[in-house]
Parts: sequence; structure tokens; C-alpha cells
Amino acid sequence: MHSPTNDGRRLAILAHEKFPERAKTALGVMRYADDEIVAVLDHTQAGTRVTDHVPDVRDAPIVDSFEAIEEPVDALLIGIAPIGGGFEERWRPDVRAAIEAGCDVIAGLHYFLNDDKELAPLAAEHGVDLVDVRKPKEDLTVAKGVADEVDAHVALTVGTDCSVGKMTVALETVHAAQAAGIDAALIPTGQTGIMIEGWGNPIDRVISDFTAGAVEEMILEIGDDHDLLVVEGQGTIIHPAYSAVTCGILHGSMADSLILCHVAGREAIHGYEDVTLPPIDTYVNLYESLAEPLFETSVVAGALNTRSIETDTEAVEAVDAFAEELGVPATDPVRFNADAIVEAITE
Amino acid sequence: MHSPTNDGRRLAILAHEKFPERAKTALGVMRYADDEIVAVLDHTQAGTRVTDHVPDVRDAPIVDSFEAIEEPVDALLIGIAPIGGGFEERWRPDVRAAIEAGCDVIAGLHYFLNDDKELAPLAAEHGVDLVDVRKPKEDLTVAKGVADEVDAHVALTVGTDCSVGKMTVALETVHAAQAAGIDAALIPTGQTGIMIEGWGNPIDRVISDFTAGAVEEMILEIGDDHDLLVVEGQGTIIHPAYSAVTCGILHGSMADSLILCHVAGREAIHGYEDVTLPPIDTYVNLYESLAEPLFETSVVAGALNTRSIETDTEAVEAVDAFAEELGVPATDPVRFNADAIVEAITE
Repeated sequence: MHSPTNDGRRLAILAHEKFPERAKTALGVMRYADDEIVAVLDHTQAGTRVTDHVPDVRDAPIVDSFEAIEEPVDALLIGIAPIGGGFEERWRPDVRAAIEAGCDVIAGLHYFLNDDKELAPLAAEHGVDLVDVRKPKEDLTVAKGVADEVDAHVALTVGTDCSVGKMTVALETVHAAQAAGIDAALIPTGQTGIMIEGWGNPIDRVISDFTAGAVEEMILEIGDDHDLLVVEGQGTIIHPAYSAVTCGILHGSMADSLILCHVAGREAIHGYEDVTLPPIDTYVNLYESLAEPLFETSVVAGALNTRSIETDTEAVEAVDAFAEELGVPATDPVRFNADAIVEAITE
Repeated sequence: MHSPTNDGRRLAILAHEKFPERAKTALGVMRYADDEIVAVLDHTQAGTRVTDHVPDVRDAPIVDSFEAIEEPVDALLIGIAPIGGGFEERWRPDVRAAIEAGCDVIAGLHYFLNDDKELAPLAAEHGVDLVDVRKPKEDLTVAKGVADEVDAHVALTVGTDCSVGKMTVALETVHAAQAAGIDAALIPTGQTGIMIEGWGNPIDRVISDFTAGAVEEMILEIGDDHDLLVVEGQGTIIHPAYSAVTCGILHGSMADSLILCHVAGREAIHGYEDVTLPPIDTYVNLYESLAEPLFETSVVAGALNTRSIETDTEAVEAVDAFAEELGVPATDPVRFNADAIVEAITE
């Protein structure tokens, strides 16, 4: 399962009609993967460049179709996910062209390219791989409750809601730790994290009985090879639909420390607007008390997404207020840096 | 999905080498289903009768093979589950004989009879159904967080561990409520419950993202047709492997009241003997505080399995001590009755 590096892959990223705001996977890969980005496909933005829209990533041309790419490409990555996770038929010409050009195709859809009656035989004919990263491993099993036996310190990002930046905080923490000379690695649990790291398991797609087991398996696989693992969390423990995934990751990871992620100003559960977020200490108590009968852990740091706050001065105030509520250090690892989180974990 | 009755089905139950102690599914069906039990298959006990081994269920002969059954049979039910949930090849002659005699075959294995290369075509040839109750529905979706909108009061059995009797307590509560004139029904979430009721969804087999949604769907389906629904709980919220399932059922059900199930004398998590059970009030706090940001609920009654206690006097003492710890009424609904639970729910 574990192919530890994507180094040197040359990617084209399909993001038709959604770049950049609604292309979360595309942006995640562009920000954090080691791959070279050769082009972005968005026919509504063709002729512009990535940095015309997003200042803080490596630049690349935006083109209207796969055939308009002028440089060699190793793989086409589907960088957008419509609601429901289906395959959109208007992507088909580009996917077909990529396969016929000898490129692998990487997708995180609920619809598996390997089940497509045209694309699967076409890929076989051209000797390329269709990589469905949302397809869970088939030989999973139940957790044994032993993830705490690995040599590495295990940290887990937990959240006050979905879409608060748990993957981003985990990645920024890994990178800040590496910059500080710590041998750190990510445990990827969602499609974007898997695309970035080149391995992982989409925990939201495994059979519910194996939720904790799938996380434990990944930690056991690389936990003796590193000093720090940061597990990408999912959902929130009070989510009306996804709390099962959150709970399984918490117990499967047996994390030594927790990083609580929140978005400044978020007041209700995303998509469930009648569910008001409880106070921050309710989350701290829930995560810690759920773990307590099984392993010792605590929230050691907070990560606040301050994107909606205009000035750095106000962002610092918001972070300080969040740290005060938590009773532990906090930061915005994207706007500022993740050093405070790394310090809190390794203390 | 919902076929509300099994009335009149004539069942043979396969329980080779495991009747009665290690045939939990067989016993559950014999105790609680409306089906007529024509025979039990256990070649190690052939020639004896069910009541030679289990006094409190309807009697039936125990035979050594399907072909030894003398009366007409509608379906053969696999009443045992080996560790891992596989199909044991030594059952094949009986399953084959049943199909050839025109009987349906009902199984709750992880191995699906419908995927078997011999049995599937044989069943098609003879026009009988292979019913794999552990196969989840395919068109599941995420929870909307609306189970609390049904007319029925929803109760949920939660546990201090696996295998503490959550299904049995739920069934005894439904039956006691019905005896008291309340229109009550079970929401079956596991293989035995599904076999007994003739419908349901095996929540431990659904994709983790749909755990809560699968429970919600069942409640919405029949929640306006009854006054009381009792949801069969699974696992425990502190289980090293299965807590995801427990958490998803809690949030998906949005239960109005919780019944905490425990086994007298149990000190460690079954199969995870180094995990000591925390005090009872830890469970009460965890279940209630996890629900609180989403819906109001509380533990209103306790159910204590006192099978290991010899005398009724001592069992009453144990139940009283459990009620004292909980701060709410308790009983052993199998040894005594479930009236105290029904009263607590409907108060």
C-alpha cells in the first residue's frame, strides 16, 4: 500500500468550471504535493495562469482541454468533486485523451474509473493505470487497539466541524516539524491527502466495523520508521452524519496528542445550519473523555483558520482569543506558521 | 426494504457442533422470531431435543442433517457464525440439500451465499432465495439529522461492552411495551435482529460515512407508524474497534431515551482484556454528552444481564446496586421482565 513518494511526477489537473474556489483537491495537491504541475484544465479560465487566481502556489498555464497541453504529462488528476462524487460526462473527452496519450488518471470520486465500461478497457489497451484513491483496501480488519505501541509520537487533527482545515493543519505541522529536523510523516485518511502523499486509505469509505482498524493499520505500517506521525482527522465528533468516522479515527489512532481545528466565525455545522456549534471546551471535553478509558491524550494546541479575517492584527487577536478558550497555544498555520503546534506536540 | 412479518415461516436452523452455547443467532431466532422451528441441525446432538438443552424456548427435534428432517420446511437458517464470518465447507451438503428441496437459505455471514459459484446458480435453478442478511443496502446516503421528527418515541439500547445483550434488551422492551398496549417496533441493526424481524440493515457493514444515515433511514421508514421504536444498539462508545458504529447509531437515531446494558461481573472489554471497563457514570456521561449538542437525551433505565448469578435474591441485589450506580431504574429483562424499562421510557 505504501509508496512513500510521488517525486518527479508531472501532473495535469482537471478543474473545469471550478478553479480555484471550488477546486479544493486541485489546490491541496498544488500546495502540498511534490509533483510538478504542468497545466490546469478549466475551459472557463483558459489563457490565464494559476498565479492570476492564486498567488501562493507554483505557477502553471490554464488550458481548455488535455489536448492543448504542450509539455509531457505523466498523469491527469481529477481535481474537483461534484456533490455526490459522480463522474461528469463532460470530463470524458479529456480523460480519454489522457489515456490515449499514455497518461495515468488519478481520481477521488465515489464513482470508480476502474468500473467504467469504456475507460477501463481503454486504459488496459494503453497500459496505463486508473487510480481510484477513494477505493478502500479490501483486506481490512478490526482494530486490535495497539496503535500506541509504535515508536513515533502520534498527533491527530480533530475539528469543531467538517471543512475547517484538518488536512491542511496536519500537512503544515508535518512540514514545520521536518523543517525543525524532526522525522515526521502524514497519515492520509481522505482523498486529497492520499493524492498528495501517494498512499493512504479513504476512511470515510471503509466498512464501519473497520474504521478504527484501517487507521491503526496505517500507523503500524510506518510508525516505527518516524519520530512523529500526524494523522489527518475527518469530520467532528458531534457531526450529525460523519461522527462515526471521527470516533473511529480517534480510537484507531490512539493519538498521544490532539490539535483542535476551527474556523474563525463558524457558528453552525456546515450543511446543517440548525446545529449550533457548542463552546470550544465542550469539544475538548468530548475528545479527551472519549479517549480516556482507552489511552491518555489531550488537546495540546489549536489551529484557527482566519481566512475570513482581513488584517493580520485582527487575525492575531482571534488566534489569541482561541488559545485563551482552549487553555493551550494556538496559531493559524497557513497565515502564520505551525511552529507553535510542533512545539506543543514535542514538549 | 421493510417486510414487516415472517409469520408462518417454517424454519430449520443449522447449528452444527455449536448448539446451544455457541449458537447465539439460532437461540435469538428461536426465542424471538414468529417463525415455527421445525428442526435444529447439529450432528453432535442428533436424537436429543431442543428442550433437553434450553428449557425456555419452544421444543423441536435436533437432527444430524437436512435430509433427516421429517416435516416440510420453508427455509434453512444458518444459526451459527464462526470467527471471521466465513462459510464452512462442511455445511455445504445441508445447504445444497435445502436448495434442492425448494427451501430458501438465510445467512448472516460475511461470506455472501449469493457470491458462491455453486450455490447461486443452484438456487436460481430451483427458484429459491439466498438471503444474505449481512449485505447492506446499496443506495444508502448520509444522515440529514432528522430522525427526531418522527411521531414515535425513539429509545436506543447502549452498552458498556459488546455482547452484553443490547438486542435482547431491545426485543424484551418491545414485547413488554406491546403487552402493555403500546404500538412498539424494533429497529434491527445486526444480523440476528434482521433475521428475527425480517427486515433491517446490518450497520456494522455499511460504509462508515453512511453509518448514521442507515439508522436514520430505518427510523424515518416506520417512525410515523408506531408509538415507540426501540433501536438495537451495537458495540460500546469506548470500544477499541467498534466505537465508530456505536457513535453513528447514537447520532443517527437521535434517540429520546437510552437504556444502558451491562453484564454483571464484566470487568474488561470482551476480547481486549487489558481494557478495564470504566465506572458506570463514565458511560452515562459519554453517551449523554456526545448527544447533547445535537439532541436531548438521557439514560432512563438500566438492563443488567445476571446470567452468571445463581440465585434470584442475589440477582435482585445486583440489579439494585446497578440502579443505584445509574441513578435510574434497572432490571434484568430476561430473568425478570422489562416492565421497569417500559415505564421509564414512557414516563
